[in-house]
Amino acid sequence: MRSIRPVQKVVDAFEALPGIGPKSAQRLAYYLLNVPQEKLTKFAQALENLKKDTRLCAICFNVGEEEFCPVCQDETRDRTQVCVVETSLDLLAFERADGFKGVYHVLGGAVAPLAGIGPNDLRIPQLTARVKAGEIKEIILATNPNMEGEATAMYITERIKEMGLMKNLKITRIGRGLPTGADIEYADGQTLTRALEGRGEM
Amino acid sequence: MRSIRPVQKVVDAFEALPGIGPKSAQRLAYYLLNVPQEKLTKFAQALENLKKDTRLCAICFNVGEEEFCPVCQDETRDRTQVCVVETSLDLLAFERADGFKGVYHVLGGAVAPLAGIGPNDLRIPQLTARVKAGEIKEIILATNPNMEGEATAMYITERIKEMGLMKNLKITRIGRGLPTGADIEYADGQTLTRALEGRGEM
Repeated sequence: MRSIRPVQKVVDAFEALPGIGPKSAQRLAYYLLNVPQEKLTKFAQALENLKKDTRLCAICFNVGEEEFCPVCQDETRDRTQVCVVETSLDLLAFERADGFKGVYHVLGGAVAPLAGIGPNDLRIPQLTARVKAGEIKEIILATNPNMEGEATAMYITERIKEMGLMKNLKITRIGRGLPTGADIEYADGQTLTRALEGRGEM
Repeated sequence: MRSIRPVQKVVDAFEALPGIGPKSAQRLAYYLLNVPQEKLTKFAQALENLKKDTRLCAICFNVGEEEFCPVCQDETRDRTQVCVVETSLDLLAFERADGFKGVYHVLGGAVAPLAGIGPNDLRIPQLTARVKAGEIKEIILATNPNMEGEATAMYITERIKEMGLMKNLKITRIGRGLPTGADIEYADGQTLTRALEGRGEM
């Protein structure tokens, strides 16, 4: 049977999303055939307006609706402490954890030479500009604990030192070790080594 | 941090889909923030037009673009053999398998008393009307091999017999047994029993 074009278009759109394979895409499209038109229109409008109605924060590059994102607008946040993350999703994860009262800087990714992403493709100049402005006392590097994230953290540290911005500034890296609820028996060697290195007093 | 409304709308729309949880929905929405507007618009239009540009086949209720679906339009198909399926997705699975040259009838679900779906909510009258017309020689009941599917198959058989339509008509149920590639060791008892019952000569 040849494919039904209007359905195939929706299948293709879903299939282009990360983590959705051809079978799930088809299931979703056929599911939507049984949804009221009103809901489809609402979904369509939300997609159409997703980027039009949002913008990146002029300070930290988090996603928001106005010039400054909700975090940067919040006057109770500590502007001397900046948590540097790769993406807005990472920022959201910290916000959900609800333990951080400083502000953020969203890099827009991590250096990945193999994917052709160098430091200049990230918002590192914007970060050093913020540091230069003088208000920041601590930079917490919260890039992912993988090769790209580590390289990015190291690059940023070098860059800030190189620029002579270390006066009154502390650069830290998020703690490494065993995640809560983990089984030591099944933990990988790297994680255990890091957990030992990062041990704290009781 | 309060949620960003335009993003939240997209998250909510994804979360309403089957098999997509809150975390995946959020990941998808943030992923789409980095996609060109042109692609978002295309996705939105595909959704908006999904139902507008499709219709159910006047004969078999499969999804198509015209009065008759591609299968019913195909003159090489054997109209004396009708495979009765629950949904258009099941029909697609048979088409992909590419072994069936008859036509279909899409019921639109299976009887599920607990979900309030009775025989009258399915396209059973439309099926008996097709049988009455006289061209059909075999009805292959290909509803799912679960409680609802079995009940539906039984109900349809009873209904056709009741209506005195069995003259020159054969009603069959799709074969039951071990799926290709299965491990007998791990097969459930029901499946093994059915496999024995459905054994064929070598």
